[in-house]
Amino acid sequence: MSIAKQRAGRHFLQIPGPSNVPDSVLRAMSKAVIDHRGPDFPDITFDVLNQLKDVFNTTAPIVIYPSSGTGAWEAALVNVLSPGDKILAFETGWFATLWKNMSQKLGIEVEWVESDWRRGVDPSIVADKLAADSKKEIKAVCVVHSETSTGSMSRISKIRQAIDSTNHPALFMVDAISSLGCVEYKHDEWAVDVTISGSQKGLMLPPGLGLNALSEKALEASKLSSSRVSYWSWQEMIENNEQGVFPYTPATNLLFGLQEALKLLHGEGLANVYARHSRLAQATRIALENWGLENLCVVPEEFSDCLTAVVMPEGHDADNLRKIILEKFNMSLGTGLGKMKSKIFRIGHIGDFNELALTGTLSGVEMGLGIAGVPHTKGGINAAMEFLSNQ
Amino acid sequence: MSIAKQRAGRHFLQIPGPSNVPDSVLRAMSKAVIDHRGPDFPDITFDVLNQLKDVFNTTAPIVIYPSSGTGAWEAALVNVLSPGDKILAFETGWFATLWKNMSQKLGIEVEWVESDWRRGVDPSIVADKLAADSKKEIKAVCVVHSETSTGSMSRISKIRQAIDSTNHPALFMVDAISSLGCVEYKHDEWAVDVTISGSQKGLMLPPGLGLNALSEKALEASKLSSSRVSYWSWQEMIENNEQGVFPYTPATNLLFGLQEALKLLHGEGLANVYARHSRLAQATRIALENWGLENLCVVPEEFSDCLTAVVMPEGHDADNLRKIILEKFNMSLGTGLGKMKSKIFRIGHIGDFNELALTGTLSGVEMGLGIAGVPHTKGGINAAMEFLSNQ
Amino acid sequence: MSIAKQRAGRHFLQIPGPSNVPDSVLRAMSKAVIDHRGPDFPDITFDVLNQLKDVFNTTAPIVIYPSSGTGAWEAALVNVLSPGDKILAFETGWFATLWKNMSQKLGIEVEWVESDWRRGVDPSIVADKLAADSKKEIKAVCVVHSETSTGSMSRISKIRQAIDSTNHPALFMVDAISSLGCVEYKHDEWAVDVTISGSQKGLMLPPGLGLNALSEKALEASKLSSSRVSYWSWQEMIENNEQGVFPYTPATNLLFGLQEALKLLHGEGLANVYARHSRLAQATRIALENWGLENLCVVPEEFSDCLTAVVMPEGHDADNLRKIILEKFNMSLGTGLGKMKSKIFRIGHIGDFNELALTGTLSGVEMGLGIAGVPHTKGGINAAMEFLSNQ
Amino acid sequence: MSIAKQRAGRHFLQIPGPSNVPDSVLRAMSKAVIDHRGPDFPDITFDVLNQLKDVFNTTAPIVIYPSSGTGAWEAALVNVLSPGDKILAFETGWFATLWKNMSQKLGIEVEWVESDWRRGVDPSIVADKLAADSKKEIKAVCVVHSETSTGSMSRISKIRQAIDSTNHPALFMVDAISSLGCVEYKHDEWAVDVTISGSQKGLMLPPGLGLNALSEKALEASKLSSSRVSYWSWQEMIENNEQGVFPYTPATNLLFGLQEALKLLHGEGLANVYARHSRLAQATRIALENWGLENLCVVPEEFSDCLTAVVMPEGHDADNLRKIILEKFNMSLGTGLGKMKSKIFRIGHIGDFNELALTGTLSGVEMGLGIAGVPHTKGGINAAMEFLSNQ
Repeated sequence: MSIAKQRAGRHFLQIPGPSNVPDSVLRAMSKAVIDHRGPDFPDITFDVLNQLKDVFNTTAPIVIYPSSGTGAWEAALVNVLSPGDKILAFETGWFATLWKNMSQKLGIEVEWVESDWRRGVDPSIVADKLAADSKKEIKAVCVVHSETSTGSMSRISKIRQAIDSTNHPALFMVDAISSLGCVEYKHDEWAVDVTISGSQKGLMLPPGLGLNALSEKALEASKLSSSRVSYWSWQEMIENNEQGVFPYTPATNLLFGLQEALKLLHGEGLANVYARHSRLAQATRIALENWGLENLCVVPEEFSDCLTAVVMPEGHDADNLRKIILEKFNMSLGTGLGKMKSKIFRIGHIGDFNELALTGTLSGVEMGLGIAGVPHTKGGINAAMEFLSNQ
Repeated sequence: MSIAKQRAGRHFLQIPGPSNVPDSVLRAMSKAVIDHRGPDFPDITFDVLNQLKDVFNTTAPIVIYPSSGTGAWEAALVNVLSPGDKILAFETGWFATLWKNMSQKLGIEVEWVESDWRRGVDPSIVADKLAADSKKEIKAVCVVHSETSTGSMSRISKIRQAIDSTNHPALFMVDAISSLGCVEYKHDEWAVDVTISGSQKGLMLPPGLGLNALSEKALEASKLSSSRVSYWSWQEMIENNEQGVFPYTPATNLLFGLQEALKLLHGEGLANVYARHSRLAQATRIALENWGLENLCVVPEEFSDCLTAVVMPEGHDADNLRKIILEKFNMSLGTGLGKMKSKIFRIGHIGDFNELALTGTLSGVEMGLGIAGVPHTKGGINAAMEFLSNQ
Repeated sequence: MSIAKQRAGRHFLQIPGPSNVPDSVLRAMSKAVIDHRGPDFPDITFDVLNQLKDVFNTTAPIVIYPSSGTGAWEAALVNVLSPGDKILAFETGWFATLWKNMSQKLGIEVEWVESDWRRGVDPSIVADKLAADSKKEIKAVCVVHSETSTGSMSRISKIRQAIDSTNHPALFMVDAISSLGCVEYKHDEWAVDVTISGSQKGLMLPPGLGLNALSEKALEASKLSSSRVSYWSWQEMIENNEQGVFPYTPATNLLFGLQEALKLLHGEGLANVYARHSRLAQATRIALENWGLENLCVVPEEFSDCLTAVVMPEGHDADNLRKIILEKFNMSLGTGLGKMKSKIFRIGHIGDFNELALTGTLSGVEMGLGIAGVPHTKGGINAAMEFLSNQ
Repeated sequence: MSIAKQRAGRHFLQIPGPSNVPDSVLRAMSKAVIDHRGPDFPDITFDVLNQLKDVFNTTAPIVIYPSSGTGAWEAALVNVLSPGDKILAFETGWFATLWKNMSQKLGIEVEWVESDWRRGVDPSIVADKLAADSKKEIKAVCVVHSETSTGSMSRISKIRQAIDSTNHPALFMVDAISSLGCVEYKHDEWAVDVTISGSQKGLMLPPGLGLNALSEKALEASKLSSSRVSYWSWQEMIENNEQGVFPYTPATNLLFGLQEALKLLHGEGLANVYARHSRLAQATRIALENWGLENLCVVPEEFSDCLTAVVMPEGHDADNLRKIILEKFNMSLGTGLGKMKSKIFRIGHIGDFNELALTGTLSGVEMGLGIAGVPHTKGGINAAMEFLSNQ
């Protein structure tokens, strides 16, 4: 069977990001470029930054880089930390590991809490580790909110409490790349010092923008950092943004797209957006359960509403299944990353997504499981439909 | 429940046309307009007309109007018939009736064969009627190939045989508006004299172009017609098209779109396109059967591969169901037209469409049936999936 | 020199229509098709019709066809006239002649007032002809407002007065295809019975929509016409439009574009739009005068603000000049039509157009004149710039 | 006069970047996002990298970042230099100064050769400085090819000779952000070690991509650098690119756009592209000379073909002129940066640009000069037209 044969109709891009981009956002991105130093530009800057506030739930500064989410990680690290500083980080999965690796490359010492990729960060370990750090050497606690590689979601509020319980002065940095815009995120209430995000997940844009939301404490720390910072400098960005401009040429057309995407999110209503993600994620998990397949995440209160990682039964290759589904049903699912390679596949249910796109997705998975000979109980789709019908 | 709440994600436009338009066709339509009398235009004209030949399976002239399909009906009638001429036409459904009404408005006498909207044209009646027409007063036999209002498909090849069996000289006119590009259509082999079509179904364009494919016999007849013809004149169109131009300003950007849509159809391969439509139509009928609901079309060999009309159980309103599905699941289904108002709903499975878009569609119908309290057996979706898995 | 070599940068489409389409209109046209019978469609219909009212300056019904402007001519004729009826028409140029030809094809008798294509309709001839028609056989007076083939503009208000002066009951039909949206048009004040227009000129859309604005008198006449009307029927269109729908599938995506184009026109302000067209037209004529070339139109108060037709000096071929300008400067100018073939070229200055696009245009003409060896005085561009600077 | 009033027609974006983006590139950017880890992605990566080779004239690796050009500067610096390293840099203008500032922020010591912003880098000074560096402390010579803030272009080939003449081992880094794709650039022949570029100038894309072209020597140096590198790491980028993927999510849709833009450049032919830029730049300088205004760049063999910076006569404010031109003629010109604030304005003539867009631009400047009361001789536009006519 050739791929081409099956490529009619709309592709189902059900990886956990980049997510499906609404047509109106793609159209906004195709507007003619304008002078980023001209009189029309500041209104765009102000509008985008203003519309972002409620998505982060913050009144603190937000900065936007022409970069991937990876760049936003680097920005967070180099602005507040100095080479030789120590951070506390947790092996929730592939992306937490990459962020840890980046920290080390940047000269940061990492106290690394290993784990099995099947859960979020345990708040009690955070408390223990910080309590044990009598010299206050740990400068920051780094947590990935929704682990895009595993589908587990760390409970930021509980971790905040754990930090507070120790009275430890460490900064709190959270990677919300795949959660922002999908689940409610409370930068200020959770007293996060740096939230890192990107454009290509819940913000419903193509990749190309990295974001940091800051805190007063983070800004103070940035003044003390001995890291050599230029491109990623918050200071310059914030000063320029106050005038509606950027210290260097911004990614104009992605900002046009972001403006439209935020308008869509606010138009639907953020509460509705989050309820929709929750509803679709629950439906996915119900399908999974009914297939008799295992969720990689084993802690129910840590299930991510952004994606679901499905464990393949022993002896079955997830990438073979993904290949079958792509070729026969024109759907891309997420591959297993790092040590999960071929052991899991990931279903993204984020961004511009709805009930029937989900049932189409789940039916594709269920048919694929059958064709690939993966042991499962049919009818996951029906259980999901039953659930969705009652919402 | 507000509609807005549910309007995230891609809308499922599952009416039997206009069909979903591929993104690349929409992009082609957004190219800058060019001079339709300039040196670049003829290549577009020639390419579009050439690419259309295999879709109609004809070597005869094809003309393209800036019009709806309705306009292409009128073009067919006024070019070859004169006021007072008689045609033989068949009440296969709403569109056949509209075409009949149009004929009468244009001064044509119609021998009208009534029917129950649940089947195509009976070839034996064609033979009988023509045989009975000893004075050869019937100038044309007019048939709708795929009745978009009912989902029944008349068997053009059999009707051709019926005409031939009587040696009657009547012209043969076929409305292939919703079938062209979905099922194999053989203008030359079936000796159709005028095939009428439009852009917004299997050709995967927005509405706005009407098409006629002609025959030598039709061209001869057009010279004898006493109808007063200007906008719709084949003659002028054909003469101009030979130079790559049009007698009046063509719908430039829809032609850009048509060029791209035809490229997509030929890229997939017409045989693959038809097999896909057949496969998805069969899956739909299997779902229907498993729900225990009735297909409006009662003749299996006349099921249309373009759409399926579903009969609502007594006491249930199809438009109520459609409203629920639109509001809750962001999917548009076709309404019952004319005497089928509220008695049926129609599922379009044409154009740029694939397996998972279909299972999404069918799951939306199945959930909608449940929510609306329409008696049915669950599991139509599963039967469809079973079928699709084995293709 | 090959064309391709020169085709970098934006093409200057300076034919008098189709005009340059604003990017946002092209983007609006690339929105996904929606169900034209669904709940969202009526708002679009109502908005478009409502926004059109001020462009026509009418409170009477406006109808929109999926057609070229030629179709809108035919609609006007067949709705109110019957075969055998007589009209009074004027040879202002190529398009007036085509409209006359169409009338004759549709069985209408034409009293044809010949002219030299260098002026608009003489109101005194209108008065004379009507006064002479003691039997009131003339059913309609047909005038082209802005003759796109010549650049002369008939004075509708004066012609209205001429008609009134004779107390003749003839209908008044005006082709405003290339003037609507460029110059102020007063359908009601001028008591025009049918105004004909199209999408691709001042309305800044690609071709594909034809328009008629009606009067009460025209509607009455339409009830008495014996013409056989179906596709073009006003009656059905108006009845359906009252519900926000159309009697047959409308050209959905062109309507999306029309909605946006009207928003732009109203956003700029119609008075500003007309002032802009006047300003740019004047600048063009100033350039022309300074080149020492002749305007085809010889009556200053009849210069069209939509286009300017330039007479080539004896012995010089306009199409050779146009070819040089296209190949060397990537600009399309309008060709001479009919008997003006190769004798004139036409500069379009309509639609989405501004000062610098005009000076670019005029400089291209001036350079082309030099290269082609056409006798002229250099500096037309400077005179135009001088004028524009003082506006 | 309000801006809005004048905003009809196409905006003239004549800043020296971002440049005008061709419509087909904007459309390519509006394609649906695809899985950057899926089977279709590598072909895009390979094609883009391959098409870039001839633009850089290199067979060495090229890396593409989701970043501005500023990011590509940082990438160049941190990959090969270590904090404490010394570089030799030249004050050719604002961007050279920013790059110097960045270097210092990154801990690099800069030997800074001041200048008056009116010329490129003097090769003899390069030779002198390197010759004087007997300890070989200078690790890199950093030069901006086309200074976007001044319109002077350093002669890379001569500077290469100067370096070679001293047998100094310093790396050679060149910022070709505004020159690449506009003038012929010979990365390999000139033995440049790192060429830095961006998407938004000659590559005809919106901003958002940063590029580095490398040399074997640069790659070797990168292995020895003690800079802490993660996001900007060449190593990881090159390794991943060999498989057609990226170490982190690339800016998918900008890559779609880049692929199309490169196709356009190669379609026109790079030699034609460069000849066009040269032609249009010459025409601009001819206009300038005829106005009697001064080119900021005073060394004729260092005039940039990308932009021209015009010195305002004493007592006249460039930004006032720019404001008038923007408001009255809907054209954006480049502002004076840094110490040139209000003293110069800059005319960009890069990217998707042609003769008539240039004459439109020059006429706008000439009219603006008149309106603003800036002393000048009229007729620059005519001299430019004379020149263009003879090309």
